[in-house]
Amino acid sequence: MKPTLSSPPDTLAVLAFGAHPDDIEFGCGGVIAQETLIGRPAHFVVCSRGEAGTHGQPEQRVAEARRAATLLGATIEFVEFDGDSHLEVRAAHAITLAGVLRRVRPGIVLAPSPAENQHPDHSRLGRLVCDAARLACFGGLRELTPSPPHRISHLLFYAVTREAEPDNISPVLIDISRPEIVAAWVAAMEAHSSQTSARNYIEVQLARARLYGLGAAMEYATALFPANPLVFNSLSGLGRGGRGA
Amino acid sequence: MKPTLSSPPDTLAVLAFGAHPDDIEFGCGGVIAQETLIGRPAHFVVCSRGEAGTHGQPEQRVAEARRAATLLGATIEFVEFDGDSHLEVRAAHAITLAGVLRRVRPGIVLAPSPAENQHPDHSRLGRLVCDAARLACFGGLRELTPSPPHRISHLLFYAVTREAEPDNISPVLIDISRPEIVAAWVAAMEAHSSQTSARNYIEVQLARARLYGLGAAMEYATALFPANPLVFNSLSGLGRGGRGA
Amino acid sequence: MKPTLSSPPDTLAVLAFGAHPDDIEFGCGGVIAQETLIGRPAHFVVCSRGEAGTHGQPEQRVAEARRAATLLGATIEFVEFDGDSHLEVRAAHAITLAGVLRRVRPGIVLAPSPAENQHPDHSRLGRLVCDAARLACFGGLRELTPSPPHRISHLLFYAVTREAEPDNISPVLIDISRPEIVAAWVAAMEAHSSQTSARNYIEVQLARARLYGLGAAMEYATALFPANPLVFNSLSGLGRGGRGA
Amino acid sequence: MKPTLSSPPDTLAVLAFGAHPDDIEFGCGGVIAQETLIGRPAHFVVCSRGEAGTHGQPEQRVAEARRAATLLGATIEFVEFDGDSHLEVRAAHAITLAGVLRRVRPGIVLAPSPAENQHPDHSRLGRLVCDAARLACFGGLRELTPSPPHRISHLLFYAVTREAEPDNISPVLIDISRPEIVAAWVAAMEAHSSQTSARNYIEVQLARARLYGLGAAMEYATALFPANPLVFNSLSGLGRGGRGA
Amino acid sequence: MKPTLSSPPDTLAVLAFGAHPDDIEFGCGGVIAQETLIGRPAHFVVCSRGEAGTHGQPEQRVAEARRAATLLGATIEFVEFDGDSHLEVRAAHAITLAGVLRRVRPGIVLAPSPAENQHPDHSRLGRLVCDAARLACFGGLRELTPSPPHRISHLLFYAVTREAEPDNISPVLIDISRPEIVAAWVAAMEAHSSQTSARNYIEVQLARARLYGLGAAMEYATALFPANPLVFNSLSGLGRGGRGA
Amino acid sequence: MKPTLSSPPDTLAVLAFGAHPDDIEFGCGGVIAQETLIGRPAHFVVCSRGEAGTHGQPEQRVAEARRAATLLGATIEFVEFDGDSHLEVRAAHAITLAGVLRRVRPGIVLAPSPAENQHPDHSRLGRLVCDAARLACFGGLRELTPSPPHRISHLLFYAVTREAEPDNISPVLIDISRPEIVAAWVAAMEAHSSQTSARNYIEVQLARARLYGLGAAMEYATALFPANPLVFNSLSGLGRGGRGA
Repeated sequence: MKPTLSSPPDTLAVLAFGAHPDDIEFGCGGVIAQETLIGRPAHFVVCSRGEAGTHGQPEQRVAEARRAATLLGATIEFVEFDGDSHLEVRAAHAITLAGVLRRVRPGIVLAPSPAENQHPDHSRLGRLVCDAARLACFGGLRELTPSPPHRISHLLFYAVTREAEPDNISPVLIDISRPEIVAAWVAAMEAHSSQTSARNYIEVQLARARLYGLGAAMEYATALFPANPLVFNSLSGLGRGGRGA
Repeated sequence: MKPTLSSPPDTLAVLAFGAHPDDIEFGCGGVIAQETLIGRPAHFVVCSRGEAGTHGQPEQRVAEARRAATLLGATIEFVEFDGDSHLEVRAAHAITLAGVLRRVRPGIVLAPSPAENQHPDHSRLGRLVCDAARLACFGGLRELTPSPPHRISHLLFYAVTREAEPDNISPVLIDISRPEIVAAWVAAMEAHSSQTSARNYIEVQLARARLYGLGAAMEYATALFPANPLVFNSLSGLGRGGRGA
Repeated sequence: MKPTLSSPPDTLAVLAFGAHPDDIEFGCGGVIAQETLIGRPAHFVVCSRGEAGTHGQPEQRVAEARRAATLLGATIEFVEFDGDSHLEVRAAHAITLAGVLRRVRPGIVLAPSPAENQHPDHSRLGRLVCDAARLACFGGLRELTPSPPHRISHLLFYAVTREAEPDNISPVLIDISRPEIVAAWVAAMEAHSSQTSARNYIEVQLARARLYGLGAAMEYATALFPANPLVFNSLSGLGRGGRGA
Repeated sequence: MKPTLSSPPDTLAVLAFGAHPDDIEFGCGGVIAQETLIGRPAHFVVCSRGEAGTHGQPEQRVAEARRAATLLGATIEFVEFDGDSHLEVRAAHAITLAGVLRRVRPGIVLAPSPAENQHPDHSRLGRLVCDAARLACFGGLRELTPSPPHRISHLLFYAVTREAEPDNISPVLIDISRPEIVAAWVAAMEAHSSQTSARNYIEVQLARARLYGLGAAMEYATALFPANPLVFNSLSGLGRGGRGA
Repeated sequence: MKPTLSSPPDTLAVLAFGAHPDDIEFGCGGVIAQETLIGRPAHFVVCSRGEAGTHGQPEQRVAEARRAATLLGATIEFVEFDGDSHLEVRAAHAITLAGVLRRVRPGIVLAPSPAENQHPDHSRLGRLVCDAARLACFGGLRELTPSPPHRISHLLFYAVTREAEPDNISPVLIDISRPEIVAAWVAAMEAHSSQTSARNYIEVQLARARLYGLGAAMEYATALFPANPLVFNSLSGLGRGGRGA
Repeated sequence: MKPTLSSPPDTLAVLAFGAHPDDIEFGCGGVIAQETLIGRPAHFVVCSRGEAGTHGQPEQRVAEARRAATLLGATIEFVEFDGDSHLEVRAAHAITLAGVLRRVRPGIVLAPSPAENQHPDHSRLGRLVCDAARLACFGGLRELTPSPPHRISHLLFYAVTREAEPDNISPVLIDISRPEIVAAWVAAMEAHSSQTSARNYIEVQLARARLYGLGAAMEYATALFPANPLVFNSLSGLGRGGRGA
């Protein structure tokens, strides 16, 4: 049996997609903070500049996103499609994202949930990333030649609200309880000051993480939703468990 | 971060429950073979002697189960309730099973799926074990005094047929592709010769494992269904991935 | 009516279970009328005398049920368990019902839906019949010796209200549009005069059948819910189709 | 084979849609083989030349598809939309497919499942065919004038993998156990040698068919998922049943 | 506590969207009749002229819709997108609808269900209105400047058939039993004489309303499906209840 | 139209059932506080003394429950069945509870959710109350003679954890944001000091209520799950709405 889980940590990057400049931070910023702290490279791909939002100008929001990424130890790029609140499920977009996957060649990909009861850009980006993860494997896609095909190991959906959580996938929980992780996450959310001054977004995310954590006997946890079944070499891989009574 | 996953293998036993003498072997025998091979103790609790079956006398079936457990490297005991095809969801049974949990003190527990479209003993035992896993934690249960409460780390459901797979839990896959594992599993199933001579049960299970395996780029896999969210310290714990295109 | 699908009619009886004296008639009386008209024997097993109902004395209700069965061309027997509104899911009951299945040896079995949002007797009887259909196959069940095992061909659930329709099974529709069938069905429902004088039960059932019928381009249809996948020898077996636009 | 359910065979063609040159064969080739063997015309409409695939050039793949269709006794045509891996849900495409339906005028239509966790072309073609089946009925659609409206009798979804099976439709099983049917199916799959040399697609499909078959007491079965309720004239139409215990 | 529910009736308009000239009337005309009778303004937005339908010319259908709106006490406008049977989910359409929401500034919005097993225009319009209700809140959407953002209080889906009812939202029932309401509703449906002469659409809707009503102890009721949880100031707001036994 | 909603507030009591002495307070104590504050009588029925819990002796727990009820303005009684962690779904229990319903004659009933992934006593009590609400209507139940039948207006399920929330019922939210309501709720939870000293139950409930509240633009909200569709006389009854963007 390959000594997969316990051996030298895999060093493939985690790649996170966001529809707007703050989605990644609010949806899974604590997870990113933890990964970069233990040495995994993280890269963000943001698909609009948030120009349709009520608060914040696009330039400000891009700057906030860059600063938040830095706080989380991640690099960032912007891949604009149809513009904030204009995203459509188009094959060309999925192929563009597949090209990003082939370039970055990540192990784990994080994307917004494709559940529909949320900002339409979120569900559509989730669907596009899901498609892109398949297209990145197809050797004959002429738009992507000559970059070699790439198969990611995991696609995990994150959710910014409970309504956005997929109702047909069981969550897995990532323990983000370490104080420095929570602090880095909060700092990254606070970096989006154009958004947080007007709404209590940070409180929402901390309450969600606290609730998932309390339910599993830890301080804070982020729920992620795997697009495909997880595969383990043995029961030892199932994690430490977090059953309450 | 606690070095949980990669450190000295946890040594708590895996405890598997079966309603009939062959359920564990057919439902998750490959997983058991793998666990015992890597040194984890395994114990079986079988809740009838299969006396309602069309084939095989109870004594023969008990002997087959004992032999199969040995082939899988597991110990076995029989805890009889209402008899084969007579199992009811009674609080006393759940408490009895909670007592077993307190005695064996396993980390991981395997039980038949509580989905209802299957042999009624299976779904009811699944429900009883689910209840027992909670009751084992309650300090005031007088029937269980003075054995100290015990909290298991994971409850995972197995299924003997596809119809029995829970439709509200995402599966996780355990890679059981190593030839010696498959061989041990098949041997354990063949030990139930009273059953396998009349029906193609072994072929069904191998086809299921093959199909799960092929879908995740490996030879054979068993699907298990966690009763509660899995918890990981980081994304590195999510296993090696098994995405096809 | 076209001489329909099965030229040489299979002659195994249809066996319908009801928790109360009028359940079968209200839930699937039109289907029964049609089957007996084309020569299939029908038998009813009623599991209480309706003694908890607000209207009608048990003797009256039994008499009404006998008369309704006659109007539908069916025979009837009463198998009492715990009494109206007292039915429990007990293994002994499932075994008793399995004994009935071995005695009557039907091809098709109709039972109330096991969905829970309805009269508790209904869902419990549905569950018991589902279990009984399995137990009837097990050769070693000592209570049922020496009656030979029997495997039914189909278990179909009926529903008395929409809320009782199982939400995880796709319905099949049985065309009951022929005027003599509708008339026989209405007569059988009217035979339960202790019930129909106080409530508009007949109107409810006709509206349900009319609505299912209108949705499939026929006059009246009854929706039934197969417990297991239907099996056909070719696409020609799929029926005549009832797609609207 | 027993002359089964429909004595005078209905003679409307079965029309199968595929997103790529091999989808129909892998998803429901056994069913097609059986239909043509008993005299029903079959026609394939393939919506790309598989040009994005890792293996096989478009010309080769088209030739493979033509040969496979011949082996199954079917005719074939190619209706190209946006290209392999580029398919979008556009009204114009649905109308084009509705035009095909009006031209071919089939009774039964087979299409890939619209479930989303699969190749995006598959789910989108499933959605488009579903829409087309409705649009084909609308007399005022100017693009389709003057071809007369056509109402199909059944739309059934097929799935190439288990993940693609719709989770809100109960399957029906078609018995494809006859050795000559299995042989024809395997030959048609093998005709796609550009695909099967690199991956074990044929084994996957045979394992799926074997598993469905074993669960229903036959050798091999294909699961299909009806878009609308099946309609029968009596319980005799429900097929022969395939209940295991 | 604010005396919300019992105080001066809120006077914000109800805004109903329909894909075709008769959708609103058939799907929720009774509810509209009731609202206008008690003094709430109602406005209809119809997104095609029904030009793909088998029966009725576009001019006739527009005239029918205008007359039906008048009969229901509502105003009406036509906002054409891609044409009947050509509707696509495009961001530009959602933004156009968001502009309508900002102009009309309704409290309650009614839209066709986004469930997919129905006329594709219906599900797509449901999706578009759902998106529009969010976009109308976003202050930075340049296409909508300078109209001020508007947040509706409720989005409720209506369904024209049972198949179109969303299966993941619990319905609420609106009692439309008053004879003058039913009469106004029927008159509005009859105004679409180009449609009702050929099909029994009115009977379908009355049977649906009757069935919902009978199930809740009233004469007629319309089921609506709230896109978001309802919020009440106390349990007194939960309505009068309609439980049967 | 009957002026139902806006007229003299209904004065029927709210009756809440709990399996253990603290379930009602943790699950829906804020709602109770609000109801009693506006003058609605509230009564609690607790079905064990919590004697299986790890912390707290039965006498202490009963005293805590009495004090908590007083703090919430409710009366309380204990109806013991099989004992803490021993509750079974027995017809006799449902009939006993139906007798309570006939005695108290409440309008609204609150019960623990029947979802199964929680303490087994909770789901079983939820099921029993659901059954009892039906049985209370049946005039012929001899155990309940001569108390007259009673039909409640609403049955609403509460949940103590997110896992216990029913996944097939849409929630409604009750705004409990008023500071004195939150204070009364917290005081009632704190009255269960035997429980709260060891676990952070209060924090869990406040986080849940805060999260539901934040999602609907208010401070705190409790989610309740109606067993049957809500019925309103007009759209004005739908409450004030709580849509976010």
